[in-house]
Amino acid sequence: MSDTTLAATSHGATRVGARSGVAVPQGFRAAGIGVGIKPANALDLALIVSDTPAHAAAVFTTNRVQAAPVIVSRQHLARSGSMASAIVVNSGCANACTGETGMQAARHMASETAQLLNCPADQVLVASTGVIGVALPIEKIRAGLPAAIRALSADQGSAAARAIMTTDPFPKLASARLRIGARDAAIGGMAKGSGMIEPMMATMLAFVTSDASVPAPLLDRALREAVNDSFNAITVDGECSTNDCVMLLANGASGAVVDEATYPAFVGGLRDVCRELALGIVRGGEGATKLITVIVTGAATAAEARRAAKTIANSPLVKTAVHGGDPNWGRLIAAAGRAGVAFELERSAVSIGPIVLFKDGRPYDEAAPEAATYLEGKDIQVSVHLGAGDASSTVWTCDLSAEYVRINADYRT
Amino acid sequence: MSDTTLAATSHGATRVGARSGVAVPQGFRAAGIGVGIKPANALDLALIVSDTPAHAAAVFTTNRVQAAPVIVSRQHLARSGSMASAIVVNSGCANACTGETGMQAARHMASETAQLLNCPADQVLVASTGVIGVALPIEKIRAGLPAAIRALSADQGSAAARAIMTTDPFPKLASARLRIGARDAAIGGMAKGSGMIEPMMATMLAFVTSDASVPAPLLDRALREAVNDSFNAITVDGECSTNDCVMLLANGASGAVVDEATYPAFVGGLRDVCRELALGIVRGGEGATKLITVIVTGAATAAEARRAAKTIANSPLVKTAVHGGDPNWGRLIAAAGRAGVAFELERSAVSIGPIVLFKDGRPYDEAAPEAATYLEGKDIQVSVHLGAGDASSTVWTCDLSAEYVRINADYRT
Repeated sequence: MSDTTLAATSHGATRVGARSGVAVPQGFRAAGIGVGIKPANALDLALIVSDTPAHAAAVFTTNRVQAAPVIVSRQHLARSGSMASAIVVNSGCANACTGETGMQAARHMASETAQLLNCPADQVLVASTGVIGVALPIEKIRAGLPAAIRALSADQGSAAARAIMTTDPFPKLASARLRIGARDAAIGGMAKGSGMIEPMMATMLAFVTSDASVPAPLLDRALREAVNDSFNAITVDGECSTNDCVMLLANGASGAVVDEATYPAFVGGLRDVCRELALGIVRGGEGATKLITVIVTGAATAAEARRAAKTIANSPLVKTAVHGGDPNWGRLIAAAGRAGVAFELERSAVSIGPIVLFKDGRPYDEAAPEAATYLEGKDIQVSVHLGAGDASSTVWTCDLSAEYVRINADYRT
Repeated sequence: MSDTTLAATSHGATRVGARSGVAVPQGFRAAGIGVGIKPANALDLALIVSDTPAHAAAVFTTNRVQAAPVIVSRQHLARSGSMASAIVVNSGCANACTGETGMQAARHMASETAQLLNCPADQVLVASTGVIGVALPIEKIRAGLPAAIRALSADQGSAAARAIMTTDPFPKLASARLRIGARDAAIGGMAKGSGMIEPMMATMLAFVTSDASVPAPLLDRALREAVNDSFNAITVDGECSTNDCVMLLANGASGAVVDEATYPAFVGGLRDVCRELALGIVRGGEGATKLITVIVTGAATAAEARRAAKTIANSPLVKTAVHGGDPNWGRLIAAAGRAGVAFELERSAVSIGPIVLFKDGRPYDEAAPEAATYLEGKDIQVSVHLGAGDASSTVWTCDLSAEYVRINADYRT
């Protein structure tokens, strides 16, 4: 679809030259340092800076409870005319349900950064992730910001990705090089995930940069389109957080200009980067041992296909069956059946990997041993055909393990 | 509300005289035997028989995939004019997604029973529970039915309750004595639950009997009303099975007649019995160690209150926090926030037990240690006030433990 080379993996191991993640596109620098919000001097403050003001687009959580940084970033985008020069992010504290004190802290986080970078406060976006209801230690952030700015570099994309982690087992980075008209451009991104992951408009935290020049309306359209096929198509545990956001900056440093003609190339590359980050979030889901790709076909409408796929992907019985390597296709069909979508049992079919286990109204249990062997893998595909139409949807999730319970029973205590 | 004495507990330990569960009302006998569907000669076939044809009402799963016994029982109720003489139930096999063979097996299960009892086939209702997609061993049932009929007795209610168990840790029985007009009457019931529990019209399997005389339309209305406040208000894992049903028989043997005037007494007693059984299902949920009562107040409408309560009750992060004894109120507020209902953060409040942890837009974290101590109990109440109106709802669920994962990762393999 696009002339894209996906350069970095979600495991953050590879990178393009010395640059990685959000620092791959020209004119962007990043930093990730520890300021003492997390214990043991772990990295907990990330900074992304564009050398020149960039067009910005963002999607935020649809949770009715919105964290202070979500509210402040939305206000800043409105006031700046969708321009941004920097994004500052902390982990270890969500700054959600923290009242007026929390709002002031989020505003200070932006204004202090802006002062040090010599840009308007409303050109700084903020994000936070961590425990809800705990006051943000703004003094620690204020004290650490000068060091973060000194650390800014084109080769610190990986440090920035590590600084936004909470229970994530590995940093998530991705980047793509693409050809726009006669010019080369790049897109880079980083994300954090783990728990409380079922985006309703955007997922946990993801930050994407590009050195293409993209007018704000096109940038917004591209972000929504890419997010729909990536972050909005994943789920770890069906939970949508108070802090979810995906932010995209495009600074034009490459000279490549995105217009209606070159839009498909740009959105294709953006989708690839977002999907790589989203799959990284699923692979790194709390307690996850397997990536599960849920494919629903034969739905009456695209919305029903997505709904059935999400219902299957959030089913604890499906997730535990995959965890245990049990080819229990009955749980797939039961989940599809309760999704509230058109479903014709006689015309439906269920497969695990390439192995058909239910079709033409009857089980093929003789194939169960083969399916059990397939389920020993780490990358599992399950497919349900609803027999009700031609629409389809793909959703990604992970298995449900005892480790998920352990992590979340012990998170704070 | 009703002149009811709730006699039996959901743990099945106590009983009314020698009679228990479905055999408490006059004119009902029960049996529970092993016919070899489950291994080790475990009880797997239950029979409930009314000495005279009874008025019958039932609610069935709303899953689009309906098991053969659900389809057959629905047909029999329609053909018999809502009359039934017996219910025959097997555990160890759900007879779901088993095609025409499964439909024939369900019909045979009813007709063989009818022949032995000398009643019309459409006066026998059938139910099955167990693994989906496995053929019902109808020959074993046929061979065992005469023994089940010989075992029929007024003191075998407990055996019948044990015979419908799958992964249930204990049998669920309940009964109530009530005064209807100048007469005494009784209601008795049994249920099985464990996993795949989030009733959308009815939950897993429950069978309720009464010796009151109740016209079919009133019986149907009473069942729907009672189920809405009991089985439809519980969730273990958000899963709605292919086999869910609640069946209610009223044979009039007590001489007590339910009409519009005495309806409140009857539905009150029925609600008590259904709620006791429903709470038994939650307490016996797979891996459950705690009963969680979720109370939502301040909702704009009753439907929104129920929706918010269900969202909280199905939240894996809430359930794991309670499991771990973590007073993580942020997860309660985040779940309410993503429920898609009206929610005013500034006017909302969150309590764990009697301890307020969030109110007037700010946390009361100084109360967290007290809440942590409260969470050491087995019977936990969490409350969220939405600040959007006057409607409320109560929903019951259990915690999410590593044992749930173990049970469901290992169920078949």
